[in-house]
Amino acid sequence: MEYRLALIGLGVVGQGIVEILTNERNSLQESYDIDLKVTAISDIRKGSVYDPEGIDLKQILDLVKEKDCIDDYIGGVKGWDSLKTIRESNADIVVEATETDIVTGEPGLTHMLTSIEHGKHVVTTNKGPLSLASTKLLDRAAEVGVHLRFEGTVLSGTPALGLATQHLAAAHIIAVHGIVNGTCNYILTEMEKGLTYDAALKQAQELGYAEADPSADVEGLDSLAKIIILANTLLGGNLNKDQVDCKGISEISREDVEAAKENGRRWKLIATAKVVNDNAIEAHVRPKKLPLDDPLAAVTGATNALTYETRYLGNITIIGPGAGGLETGYAILHDILDIHKKLREQ
Amino acid sequence: MEYRLALIGLGVVGQGIVEILTNERNSLQESYDIDLKVTAISDIRKGSVYDPEGIDLKQILDLVKEKDCIDDYIGGVKGWDSLKTIRESNADIVVEATETDIVTGEPGLTHMLTSIEHGKHVVTTNKGPLSLASTKLLDRAAEVGVHLRFEGTVLSGTPALGLATQHLAAAHIIAVHGIVNGTCNYILTEMEKGLTYDAALKQAQELGYAEADPSADVEGLDSLAKIIILANTLLGGNLNKDQVDCKGISEISREDVEAAKENGRRWKLIATAKVVNDNAIEAHVRPKKLPLDDPLAAVTGATNALTYETRYLGNITIIGPGAGGLETGYAILHDILDIHKKLREQ
Repeated sequence: MEYRLALIGLGVVGQGIVEILTNERNSLQESYDIDLKVTAISDIRKGSVYDPEGIDLKQILDLVKEKDCIDDYIGGVKGWDSLKTIRESNADIVVEATETDIVTGEPGLTHMLTSIEHGKHVVTTNKGPLSLASTKLLDRAAEVGVHLRFEGTVLSGTPALGLATQHLAAAHIIAVHGIVNGTCNYILTEMEKGLTYDAALKQAQELGYAEADPSADVEGLDSLAKIIILANTLLGGNLNKDQVDCKGISEISREDVEAAKENGRRWKLIATAKVVNDNAIEAHVRPKKLPLDDPLAAVTGATNALTYETRYLGNITIIGPGAGGLETGYAILHDILDIHKKLREQ
Repeated sequence: MEYRLALIGLGVVGQGIVEILTNERNSLQESYDIDLKVTAISDIRKGSVYDPEGIDLKQILDLVKEKDCIDDYIGGVKGWDSLKTIRESNADIVVEATETDIVTGEPGLTHMLTSIEHGKHVVTTNKGPLSLASTKLLDRAAEVGVHLRFEGTVLSGTPALGLATQHLAAAHIIAVHGIVNGTCNYILTEMEKGLTYDAALKQAQELGYAEADPSADVEGLDSLAKIIILANTLLGGNLNKDQVDCKGISEISREDVEAAKENGRRWKLIATAKVVNDNAIEAHVRPKKLPLDDPLAAVTGATNALTYETRYLGNITIIGPGAGGLETGYAILHDILDIHKKLREQ
């Protein structure tokens, strides 16, 4: 089966999926009988190309590398903005990989709603729209009869959502908690090695883990967006960010880390969502001192992890990358393959 | 859709799936549009019942609890042995949950082959047949057009195989290693707390983790069977047990454990399979001193874990139960739901 993809956003993640598709096109045809053809790319800074017959991805990667711009692409139509690309391209699947805005959800939210209204499946790695409006998006997609997938919004390509929805749902997930922000985890790991909070943050910034304004990470807002996605899409919650207590790691001192270590414990920023007595869903983000025999305590550096508490299996933990271009790009491929499976079931 | 199940083996695992089906029948109909009806049960010690209209599972559980025997079941036909049950019952899916024999694979191997020849799907938790003859079984199932699923042969209900086949395959798994025997891991954990090997083994036996003859666990043979299943069904290997170096934990002393601890390391029995240079598959089972920042080092007690090494995601680790009646019973439900999905795709 052939799918035509429109790629909205050509940042680190967009380039990741382009690289994977460049490498894997033949092997995907052999293994999954699926031909993935990118016919449109639109990025607000790097430019846009539309070619209904399929874009040469190798040329795109070379242009991005050399010029950080795809305007010189040979062939295709140039200059379509994201909404024109979504509306007028021949894509079956829109890949939404623009930057996350957890306050407005834009521009991703409008991109996704427009895609759905135009009968196009959506795959996204953008946390903003899903944390703000997952119910609206999923309901509307179901009404229209298109699929919406968002594995890459949590733990990048680590298939934490797929594991839960496809393998643990029948075991009844009653809670989920974990480390969903690699920057905070990196900082806490470095503090345990002896750095102060400020020095560890500076190091995270130098390595590209943390932004110049690190507040979305260190104050827990990125974790907040992710736990809302987990709570609302896996546990049936309907939470918004004002209903979730959120505390980050910026007040944890070197002394706090040392004191925990002496007591056989380790600070981690933990995001939690659980079904409470009356079937309501409760969630929060806060630093916790975990005992060292908790599998999450051993998750160090920028790695992420989630533990699902289930009725029949007890705790199931998945550990893997939480960021990265190829890693998050893989989430997009994962979701396209999942949509392909679903379409074959119909 | 209705499925009729024949349950071969009513030990701890068989009782586990019976209990789950008793609890979940209505919820499975609602969530998956699937009606699971057990029409036959055959156990070499506890007796057998066949009722083409469906067996009352509550009555079965009560009889097993009270009499360890189902001969007094009210209704149905009694006395069918396992092969007659497989051949002549109206089951669509045969659930093979007899005891593992890793030398001959019997009686599970004959049960599975007979099921396949009679056009019945097979779900199993029995490691013997899969570790000895996975290629033969899977090839024959494909020829006949039935499905064979075996999630419960590795890490009980922890969906380690489902994670790999359905979510990591496109990321290219190049190796897998982990803790696949809970008894050994329990013993090593207790030794680190101060027990000798013999005392820890005795404790594992008292808790029911280890058999009176513990050699299959402590000499690594159980891990060997599991790594062969992983190597041959996930990595495309064709290994038999003579091609896999296997060393257990019986020679590890209290002093060894203490010395590792002093060096910031921890002994674990690790089973490994990997793709080597010429695309051959290599596997072994041996105790290893892991650094404490390896996620597997933090897996304590009877818990199991596997780390998949992949091209696009790096390492993905899943941690969960490795044994237990309900836990392994859940693997059977998981596999039936997976077959249901596959049948809907066709």
